[in-house]
Amino acid sequence: MVASEAPIVRVDQLSEHVGSAVRLRGWLSAHRAGKKVQFLELRDGTGVAACVLAAQDAPETFEAARALDQECCLTLTGTVQAHPKKPGVCEVLVSDLEFRPTVGEYPITPKEHGTDFLMDHRHLWLRSKRQHAILRIRHSIIKAVRDFFDSRGFTLIDAPIFTPNACEGTSTLFETRYHEETAYLTQSGQLYMEAAAAAFGKAYCFGPTFRAEKSKTRRHLAEFWMVEPEVAFMDLDGDMELAEQFLEYVVGRVLEERRPELEVLERNTAVLESVKAPFPRISYDDAVARLAQLGQTVAAEDDFGAEHETVLSQQFDRPVIVHRYPKACKAFYMKADPTRPNRALCMDVLAPEGYGEIIGGGQREDDLTVLESTINAHHLPPEAFEWYLDLRRFGSFPHSGFGLGIERTVAWLCGLSHVRETIPFPRLLNRLRP
Amino acid sequence: MVASEAPIVRVDQLSEHVGSAVRLRGWLSAHRAGKKVQFLELRDGTGVAACVLAAQDAPETFEAARALDQECCLTLTGTVQAHPKKPGVCEVLVSDLEFRPTVGEYPITPKEHGTDFLMDHRHLWLRSKRQHAILRIRHSIIKAVRDFFDSRGFTLIDAPIFTPNACEGTSTLFETRYHEETAYLTQSGQLYMEAAAAAFGKAYCFGPTFRAEKSKTRRHLAEFWMVEPEVAFMDLDGDMELAEQFLEYVVGRVLEERRPELEVLERNTAVLESVKAPFPRISYDDAVARLAQLGQTVAAEDDFGAEHETVLSQQFDRPVIVHRYPKACKAFYMKADPTRPNRALCMDVLAPEGYGEIIGGGQREDDLTVLESTINAHHLPPEAFEWYLDLRRFGSFPHSGFGLGIERTVAWLCGLSHVRETIPFPRLLNRLRP
Repeated sequence: MVASEAPIVRVDQLSEHVGSAVRLRGWLSAHRAGKKVQFLELRDGTGVAACVLAAQDAPETFEAARALDQECCLTLTGTVQAHPKKPGVCEVLVSDLEFRPTVGEYPITPKEHGTDFLMDHRHLWLRSKRQHAILRIRHSIIKAVRDFFDSRGFTLIDAPIFTPNACEGTSTLFETRYHEETAYLTQSGQLYMEAAAAAFGKAYCFGPTFRAEKSKTRRHLAEFWMVEPEVAFMDLDGDMELAEQFLEYVVGRVLEERRPELEVLERNTAVLESVKAPFPRISYDDAVARLAQLGQTVAAEDDFGAEHETVLSQQFDRPVIVHRYPKACKAFYMKADPTRPNRALCMDVLAPEGYGEIIGGGQREDDLTVLESTINAHHLPPEAFEWYLDLRRFGSFPHSGFGLGIERTVAWLCGLSHVRETIPFPRLLNRLRP
Repeated sequence: MVASEAPIVRVDQLSEHVGSAVRLRGWLSAHRAGKKVQFLELRDGTGVAACVLAAQDAPETFEAARALDQECCLTLTGTVQAHPKKPGVCEVLVSDLEFRPTVGEYPITPKEHGTDFLMDHRHLWLRSKRQHAILRIRHSIIKAVRDFFDSRGFTLIDAPIFTPNACEGTSTLFETRYHEETAYLTQSGQLYMEAAAAAFGKAYCFGPTFRAEKSKTRRHLAEFWMVEPEVAFMDLDGDMELAEQFLEYVVGRVLEERRPELEVLERNTAVLESVKAPFPRISYDDAVARLAQLGQTVAAEDDFGAEHETVLSQQFDRPVIVHRYPKACKAFYMKADPTRPNRALCMDVLAPEGYGEIIGGGQREDDLTVLESTINAHHLPPEAFEWYLDLRRFGSFPHSGFGLGIERTVAWLCGLSHVRETIPFPRLLNRLRP
């Protein structure tokens, strides 16, 4: 049979084969059957092909095709032609098709499903146009993140997942029996990246991190991916510059590569176009004053809550950098501002449109004595930090870095109100399956 | 002071500044002090600069520099000049330097240390030339892996780390309390990638995986990184082709980018040059016969052990693909060879020089009824696989894929006898620190 010898092509190659017979393999994503013509949509991961099956061209195939179920796997032979009405679009005139019937009815129908139902069927839900768009944007973000650091002399130094010590309380840590000991799943690779910066100058890690969140929020997952660069001889100013260049680059790449996907999500891209360095920078104290004017009170020397971040970030057309938070509300390794010791040389980048913190970072304490006393003051087990203190004993150096959460970035760039769709298989308080 | 206004440069930029004054920042990696001249080596992560300090040029600095300890952090000002004897090499004539003294003596001295001692000081050991070489090669391997798949239409679909079920026995699984349930740390993202292949056609995951190894071996880590591609409508032959193209590409990239590092490791690169597709392919049964000729017995229908792999792989100048192992010794999801049902449509790629298995993969069972009965026969909990069986109910499709272990690949390409140095912070049976 001549038809079956037609070359196998992907949907995204159809336009190269106008006038020729081809074979397509994929799944039936839509089907409309009339008396004389059936319209099939075949998706294969590279796109969706509009296929037309006419009763007069292939009467037997036409009858068989009536039985096609949504999402059945099919191989289809036909001739590619330019769509009669849509310029630049191809369609396929089907001459033959083979298919494997589904077993039962496809659970996801065009009607509205609740999120729990869709999440229970995440392994199938991934096939939808919207999930494709989100996960392809995620792919581009991750690629851009790595390209940014790889092309700027950073060395990838994967941080360990198993860590021996609970650095800052065990309440949000997952623990596991590690042979004869207890190990905790990492919440950040930063301390390890500080060792890496002393060895490589510029280093970054990029991997999953874990947080045993006891509450449901729109912005937290039990496992999420984080990238953490760390740079020797970089101060807080350099850190802020790196963060804004980095975000400008990542957003630019997504705009370059993922216009069609942003359209599927009906994302307003104008607000993404304005993500250009330099970003506005505002000190914590100025931010508190500004929030007060907007009717938002921040408790003395306290960190911002989600609501504060939302209100503040809505004041700007691009990400805003808030720097020099109170030392009291930040982690032990933050370096104090020499001109104001109760302020830390730290910064958060808040995404616009109320997305809140997507980057947190700062300059690290590099004085051995100061660090020892802070570890004490925070009631941390000193023996757990002996190796970390070694970095101050042997070649202590000024250094800074930050962490960016991938899922929050995906949510922001896609314009999603919840992080649960930003990762292929989300893990939430009540969600460990599939 | 004029000197301190000299531009700050990196060691790898020195050759662009011959004849000019520059400042370098980094750590003292070697120091030899004579009466009139001191030789300093400064490393900054981009390279090592040879620096010369003459008593007559800077008498005060000269005296102060006598106190320099190994690995102290220093900023050094000087004039770049071409090395008088080594063409293409620069050195720096020092006019000024500032340094921060170390606290105590640097623990790693030029004398031989045992591996345990070095691993206890992994955070400092990373600064050595050998560890730099290994971890930079690791970086290039990871980058090449991602570039290979990204440039061939694969979508990155991160598999979850927390998984709800122990698919094949719990003895090598790490478990953790996940809110009200028990979760296990993933050993493979494959089942999830099969769902991804149905959605995206070509997908891959790349992340850490976990194995609670109870024994010490040269080839196992408790946490290790694995890349797992999965492709719709690809059969075993296609899988073998993809694997060999992939390895040829990755090895090629390392040879292209990391010659100096391979030299540091005294790696024989001739054996890497011959890693070109196609690789020899040999069936399990032929391999058993060949092993018998070489004096190695394999128990009937049994998998190969490390010794078998070593002996077999030594017969070839490049990786060898062994295919169609007994179905009885392989995982439940392997598709049976239709021409010989007790053989699986699977393959392993064994690296040469005795490095053994670095890739394992094959074609997956796509028949619902067969898969259900195999799950039964393996005494696996059927309810745990309901979602996986959905992939056979709704649009079942032929598909194949494989997994490559990053650390074994790094060990092979670097020529290391043990995987423990192939990852920045290795996690082994007795090693959870630092």
